[in-house]
Amino acid sequence: MTEFTINERNRVKRGHKRACYDEETVYGILDSHFLCHVAYEVDGQPQIIPTSYWREGNRLYWHGASKSRMIREVTSGKEACVSVAHLDGLVLARSAFNTSANYRSVICYGRPELVTDTAEFDRQMELFFEQLAPGRWSQLRPITGQERKATALVVMEITDAAAKVRDGGPGDGDTEDVDWPVWSGHIPLTTQQRGPVGAPEGVRAALNHRLMPGHDWNNR
Amino acid sequence: MTEFTINERNRVKRGHKRACYDEETVYGILDSHFLCHVAYEVDGQPQIIPTSYWREGNRLYWHGASKSRMIREVTSGKEACVSVAHLDGLVLARSAFNTSANYRSVICYGRPELVTDTAEFDRQMELFFEQLAPGRWSQLRPITGQERKATALVVMEITDAAAKVRDGGPGDGDTEDVDWPVWSGHIPLTTQQRGPVGAPEGVRAALNHRLMPGHDWNNR
Repeated sequence: MTEFTINERNRVKRGHKRACYDEETVYGILDSHFLCHVAYEVDGQPQIIPTSYWREGNRLYWHGASKSRMIREVTSGKEACVSVAHLDGLVLARSAFNTSANYRSVICYGRPELVTDTAEFDRQMELFFEQLAPGRWSQLRPITGQERKATALVVMEITDAAAKVRDGGPGDGDTEDVDWPVWSGHIPLTTQQRGPVGAPEGVRAALNHRLMPGHDWNNR
Repeated sequence: MTEFTINERNRVKRGHKRACYDEETVYGILDSHFLCHVAYEVDGQPQIIPTSYWREGNRLYWHGASKSRMIREVTSGKEACVSVAHLDGLVLARSAFNTSANYRSVICYGRPELVTDTAEFDRQMELFFEQLAPGRWSQLRPITGQERKATALVVMEITDAAAKVRDGGPGDGDTEDVDWPVWSGHIPLTTQQRGPVGAPEGVRAALNHRLMPGHDWNNR
């Protein structure tokens, strides 16, 4: 099992028993979401932006408008930090102190760069769509040169990473709190896809198109 | 309607038509989640941590272990940035370029501080629990002095904030793409509470306790 090296930047200090550094866990969590938060710094001010992302190998990708401040700042040679977090449940212990949440979380570190090669840009955008809605890419109105120019693609080699995972019920079942007379347990939270809502205008002929892959939002 | 002042730090530049700066929208989004991301900077390295939070007035609160690196760094007098984001759906347009997501997002800026007053600590922890699971606080095994000491409470006055919201279907219905023969529309995503899972050990007498308030995860 390949593991990320543990160092000062990615070492999980609090709740270190919940930490994982193996690629399988890190990549598994990354591949089960598509909303990440990217943190970067501008003149001493931390900035965060939530954005969609995807992974290929040990690299994270995201995109944005070519003229966006985020794209400019994040590809200016500085270190960035990317977080992906699933909130999987509330853990209701018998005390406030032991009350917790279930989650799967990954933090990745690296130095993002712009992807400037057009063929690689197209390949990555298709890869993004294949993860989002398999089979859809080839059915879309093809991307134009102008759209390509207006879109910036960012790649970040994952230099350091750490995952942190909590699941299951409260941890106070083996403490003296166990007989405290209040219900205890956990409340799972899941993300659900609702039925698709068709656009009111335009061609309806393609309704038998394979819509969505039944993406497993809560995949473990 | 009270609005946050727009300045270089919080001004939404891309997709500015989706931006809102009014307190009602900002507070509404903050109050409909409890997972945030806090970004801060340590020696030029951006760090992010996902954590639970709550709001009172124009202040955000979160807590952590007194000895945690996040608590130490984030209360050392530096600026921080907090993000709260709901992913509400996928927007499948007829082109890759117009494909999008529905979301409700808030970014807040401020300078976090430690809350050191014990009465205020207790009041805030109760407020947190009232938002999480109304009525539960008074039924819990009371917090001890040692637990209070091990827990740090952070407050951040929201100096600047901006919300950004997208909803509805694809925006290409009034472009020449409208007749492109592919299904288009949006797929709503919602967060669901599943049935509670009781802890296997301990007192069961309190099962008729009002469990959870039916927190509206998808509240708009």
